[in-house]
Amino acid sequence: MNLQGKVVIAQGGGPTAVINQSLVGAILESKKFSQITKIYGAVGGIRGIINEDFLDLSQETTHNLEQVAISASSALLSTRDKPDDDYCTEAFHVMKAHDVRYFFYIGGNDSSDTVRIINEKAIQENYDFRAIHIPKTIDNDLVLNDHTPGFGSAARFVAEAFIGANLDNRSLPGVYIGIVMGRHAGFLTAASAMAKKFPDDGPHLIYLPERVFDKEQFLQDVKNTYDKYGRCVIAVSEGITDKNGTPIISTLSETVEKDAHGNVQLSGTGALGDLLSDYIKKNLKISRVRSDTFGYLQRSFMPCVSDIDQIEAREVGEKAAHFAIWHNINCSITIQRVGNYAVEYKPVPLKEIAAKTRLMPDEYINSNGNYITNDFISYCAPLIGSDFAQPARIRAPKVDRIVKK
Amino acid sequence: MNLQGKVVIAQGGGPTAVINQSLVGAILESKKFSQITKIYGAVGGIRGIINEDFLDLSQETTHNLEQVAISASSALLSTRDKPDDDYCTEAFHVMKAHDVRYFFYIGGNDSSDTVRIINEKAIQENYDFRAIHIPKTIDNDLVLNDHTPGFGSAARFVAEAFIGANLDNRSLPGVYIGIVMGRHAGFLTAASAMAKKFPDDGPHLIYLPERVFDKEQFLQDVKNTYDKYGRCVIAVSEGITDKNGTPIISTLSETVEKDAHGNVQLSGTGALGDLLSDYIKKNLKISRVRSDTFGYLQRSFMPCVSDIDQIEAREVGEKAAHFAIWHNINCSITIQRVGNYAVEYKPVPLKEIAAKTRLMPDEYINSNGNYITNDFISYCAPLIGSDFAQPARIRAPKVDRIVKK
Repeated sequence: MNLQGKVVIAQGGGPTAVINQSLVGAILESKKFSQITKIYGAVGGIRGIINEDFLDLSQETTHNLEQVAISASSALLSTRDKPDDDYCTEAFHVMKAHDVRYFFYIGGNDSSDTVRIINEKAIQENYDFRAIHIPKTIDNDLVLNDHTPGFGSAARFVAEAFIGANLDNRSLPGVYIGIVMGRHAGFLTAASAMAKKFPDDGPHLIYLPERVFDKEQFLQDVKNTYDKYGRCVIAVSEGITDKNGTPIISTLSETVEKDAHGNVQLSGTGALGDLLSDYIKKNLKISRVRSDTFGYLQRSFMPCVSDIDQIEAREVGEKAAHFAIWHNINCSITIQRVGNYAVEYKPVPLKEIAAKTRLMPDEYINSNGNYITNDFISYCAPLIGSDFAQPARIRAPKVDRIVKK
Repeated sequence: MNLQGKVVIAQGGGPTAVINQSLVGAILESKKFSQITKIYGAVGGIRGIINEDFLDLSQETTHNLEQVAISASSALLSTRDKPDDDYCTEAFHVMKAHDVRYFFYIGGNDSSDTVRIINEKAIQENYDFRAIHIPKTIDNDLVLNDHTPGFGSAARFVAEAFIGANLDNRSLPGVYIGIVMGRHAGFLTAASAMAKKFPDDGPHLIYLPERVFDKEQFLQDVKNTYDKYGRCVIAVSEGITDKNGTPIISTLSETVEKDAHGNVQLSGTGALGDLLSDYIKKNLKISRVRSDTFGYLQRSFMPCVSDIDQIEAREVGEKAAHFAIWHNINCSITIQRVGNYAVEYKPVPLKEIAAKTRLMPDEYINSNGNYITNDFISYCAPLIGSDFAQPARIRAPKVDRIVKK
């Protein structure tokens, strides 16, 4: 089998700090195959295909590609379009017109669904075509994967942010709330626990979308922590919901923005943090309550990237070329943990990944639903990479009092 | 002159990423002088002195001190107390009781005022005593200084955050607002401009507390940028005010929190970003408008520190020992730029620094009051340190259209 033709690569959905590693891995590996006539990049995700907006990546230099690889966010730009059947048919016909035989789409579960539908169009038209979904998402919510590229770096950012926030809160005590991305899956919020070094370090409490958020219990948790340590550092997922599944942020305002999928807009606003701060101030009479919403920094901050995540993001890109060009299969590439710490990349049928969401397993969440377990720590530790910050404390002895004994 | 006795070191006000460099510089250098009998650390700033809450730093190991030096936030903890005359008298008497002859206080302009008052107590009581203010503030607002330790690292964080935010906004276009710390001085917000590499990169607009914030002009600026680039990235200081000097955030709510100094609480809330986002959405009919408030991450994020800032923070700590123990003077230590790039440390009388605020000079702000000048870029460039992120773009040629000509 030697299917000659062009490759089209695109990037969909929210960007990550390592998504360009996958792009560059796929480009450089594809260039090694003589049957690949050209490598095109679609500008702006699947929309770039519809618009016939291609860049000839075959004419990009290796040096510049390596510089792009270490740059955050989607170098080919992205889209939030959720294509329907007609949209996918049109995209397929544009690719067919350009003699494209290989389609690599880097994205989350929405993107994998797009790959699946486009692949079906090719089968229907009996056009020899390979479609590969290259995984990417800071939410870490793709099924059948141990984890996904982009998560490790975002997790590292969140953990490092909480190291700093904890030290800050220790020096000027009060309550601190950090709001972390993640609509349904709490992995990224859970990663805040990697910040804890000493037993009294924060985060002291972690609230995940996998558990019902009970405002009364929350107050009690905060009070208990504050009484014990004189301060409290809290990690909260933006996606927390009440017992009816209503996002807590919706209880704040009736004019909450909704996206094309009918989802409430959670990111790019400090509303949830402010709501929870006000609630604590009012009910617990604690004056110094602060919240930060980590927002878009979590997925595009270049100085804080996991080396493991970079390597794996590169490798899933390379594997796209292997699976499509050598092995002649259509698939989503998954990451399987096979050692401590080692991974393998396994192809799975597109329909098994597409449009499904993986949540935190129960064994990663404590019984009170307000923290994570050591199982999660073991799981997450290798993913955030090496040279992780190790904040030190002064451990000098106390001096005896003279004036006020 | 060989004044024998103890050293007390304390850290006041908001922490920075490099404030412990100054602490460790002062400790290690003081240990080299035989007339120094002990080195005490006051826990929680000036309040630690009042409470007679001292740690014997002479018994700390060099290794652990070096680990503390690279840890963010105030290792001796901090305070927001603004001492009055009685408070300073009490602090002085505690130090006198412990045979303290040297007082080094690391802090901003409030802290330098505390050093000044305590020094006056010693003079009044004819007690031989040296008092040194070691500068620190991410706001960069100490008079008579070219810049202050802590600013470079916070500026680097802000610039790196805008590099990521710009790339993110480029891949998924819309309006992005990043809210930056700084009540009166706009230096830190201005540092966002260091993120710009290509002519169409953001931040496209920068709003500083040194200029009146006119909401109508703001809308027009955003519209012009959006029309030109199809997107708009904006840096806004949390301290922006209207023509009456009223903080813009106060126009949002009547229940704004005020601190002990009567200042409106600006940090630890996403309110200003949300206010400006809503204002743009409503008036410009742009649907994708997002804001992030960088909050406490700016001053305590360990993976993003300027090496120049680290070195200078260490050096001002060492100079405290030199000026007090060798030169026998009371002073605030200032940083003077003497080359490109080189600095010297000059002692100035405490009263010349205390409780004054330095603002951005006019030549650093453009005539429209919505961006900075190249003079600011030249000023800021060395301070953010080496190995600054260099995001790359794909520069492959466009492919000719076949389907849609």
